[in-house]
Amino acid sequence: MKRTELSSLGEFGLIDRIKEKFTATHPSTVRGIGDDAAVIDTGGDHYQLISTDLLIEGVHFDLTYVPLQHLGYKAVAVNVSDIAAMNGVPAQITVSVGLSNRISLEAIDALYEGIQSACDAYGIDLVGGDTSTSRSGLVISVTATGRVHKDKITYRNTAQAADILCITGDIGAAYLGLQALEREKREFLENPNMQPQLDDKSYVVGRQLKPQARTDVVHDLAEAGVVPTAMIDVSDGLASEIMHLCTQSGVGATIFEENIPIDDHTFLAADEFQISPITAALNGGEDYELLMTIKQADYEKIKNLPNITPIGYINADPKQIDLATKGGNRVPIQAQGWQHL
Amino acid sequence: MKRTELSSLGEFGLIDRIKEKFTATHPSTVRGIGDDAAVIDTGGDHYQLISTDLLIEGVHFDLTYVPLQHLGYKAVAVNVSDIAAMNGVPAQITVSVGLSNRISLEAIDALYEGIQSACDAYGIDLVGGDTSTSRSGLVISVTATGRVHKDKITYRNTAQAADILCITGDIGAAYLGLQALEREKREFLENPNMQPQLDDKSYVVGRQLKPQARTDVVHDLAEAGVVPTAMIDVSDGLASEIMHLCTQSGVGATIFEENIPIDDHTFLAADEFQISPITAALNGGEDYELLMTIKQADYEKIKNLPNITPIGYINADPKQIDLATKGGNRVPIQAQGWQHL
Repeated sequence: MKRTELSSLGEFGLIDRIKEKFTATHPSTVRGIGDDAAVIDTGGDHYQLISTDLLIEGVHFDLTYVPLQHLGYKAVAVNVSDIAAMNGVPAQITVSVGLSNRISLEAIDALYEGIQSACDAYGIDLVGGDTSTSRSGLVISVTATGRVHKDKITYRNTAQAADILCITGDIGAAYLGLQALEREKREFLENPNMQPQLDDKSYVVGRQLKPQARTDVVHDLAEAGVVPTAMIDVSDGLASEIMHLCTQSGVGATIFEENIPIDDHTFLAADEFQISPITAALNGGEDYELLMTIKQADYEKIKNLPNITPIGYINADPKQIDLATKGGNRVPIQAQGWQHL
Repeated sequence: MKRTELSSLGEFGLIDRIKEKFTATHPSTVRGIGDDAAVIDTGGDHYQLISTDLLIEGVHFDLTYVPLQHLGYKAVAVNVSDIAAMNGVPAQITVSVGLSNRISLEAIDALYEGIQSACDAYGIDLVGGDTSTSRSGLVISVTATGRVHKDKITYRNTAQAADILCITGDIGAAYLGLQALEREKREFLENPNMQPQLDDKSYVVGRQLKPQARTDVVHDLAEAGVVPTAMIDVSDGLASEIMHLCTQSGVGATIFEENIPIDDHTFLAADEFQISPITAALNGGEDYELLMTIKQADYEKIKNLPNITPIGYINADPKQIDLATKGGNRVPIQAQGWQHL
């Protein structure tokens, strides 16, 4: 029997392969696989959104340095971020957990305290889930629901030439936070009596351990009366998300290095780790900011919003996806992203 | 720091502990944790239902004898069963998978063929999911959505004294199918050249490997104009589900051993494995039939339906939950169920 290694396909190849086989036929399915969330028409003037993420110990998180309370919070936030990326407002989550026998009840309580804290922060309810033993470490599966007015839903495949490309907050920090935590772990393993030296890394470490979904920006956009032409959340790094947005919209994009919002703490940490801050921003991932395109006519409405930065524009040519460097060069953007598969 | 072992609480204890901490506050949440599915009011005359299950290799399935195609089918069917248990009709699923590097692309294709086959069988769409590596075996997390008219929703905590207790199909078979598969595995490990001897076990093995959600019964009930007063799906064995239904409804129940529907193949397999068929029915689990209560006034409407068997009645006294044996004795029913935790 033929045996093809999964690694020959990669995660996005596998998703494409699955997507090809499944055609949505139920009358209530508006959009299936391929965006940040599925879109369901339950009647009325709003769509329902559904998104799901699977987090596995040793792949997505390392319990030697990730506090369970933060992990619970993050598991919820990354799903809420997918709802926000459709311009939606989150409503409910289900949380399933696979628990090894090694885990104590106190540890589970800490995990659920983090989940509860995120539910409070985003105004959502935990409405269900499943619990099981796991032979091998902690498994967390979260599904989030949300809603969005039919006139405001924002897909990732609807960017138009000449739209302005914007990003929320700042990026690259979460990746440097991960580097700081990994270094602490290595040093602790070498010398278990060491004191943690993360004081000056609190910003980047915080961005890694406890990311926030940009529900505030979805609110601000609504207040400003702006519906983005396309939107996607930045989970795998800016380069990967720009590629998704462009490929699926059939357009290209040019971004300006000097416009990419990178926090001072990120620059300092990048310098210390001898990592290019722009590489961290483009390929680091886990920032959970929103990448969006807006019509030029809407620029006046968003230009004074504190959390949105214009970083470039959309090109009609789908082959032109590039970075205009500070030095005046044009460099093609290539997706790298996480290689969980 | 205090350390309490998870095993001291058990799965149902853990769920109760979680449930206590989370109060639903979102205006669209009708019912959260505690029934077969969560209930969401998305507007209009139907509720939306959401249910989720987590399946972990080595805990819920053994790939040495479970074909991946059947596993994919079953992962969907068990979630659809939860939707059916609310008297609902399924609509969409999301499927997340954690894949070990050992798994080939052909194996993943087989898994998704089973998922697709179940989607076709139940008329539902796969609309999303997540894919990841797993350090340790296959992990499958399925979330199903469904809908039910607000007048027809059926909870598990609304059984009334003097209602008739009914069950669909037959029970106990899936447990004996598991015994047959486990025996084959042991014998194969002792003698790898042996031929499988499962021919006369095809019914019970089929019930274990490829259970069906009783969406047909939900349809039949609608046709008959009957809304059960309470309903729950039989995933953990009849005893456990009767206890849930009674405890949450604040009632008791009496069931008659002679009325419990057990297939002839189940009797034969039970005899061969020297397991009491009534024990398999009460405590075996994984039958995915529906246990429901109906008003006496509705009995005429359902008595000729082929897949529904009256097995007892509801008692006003919540302490009286018993089995009337063929020998004329009354034995208290105790939940046993699966101990995945």
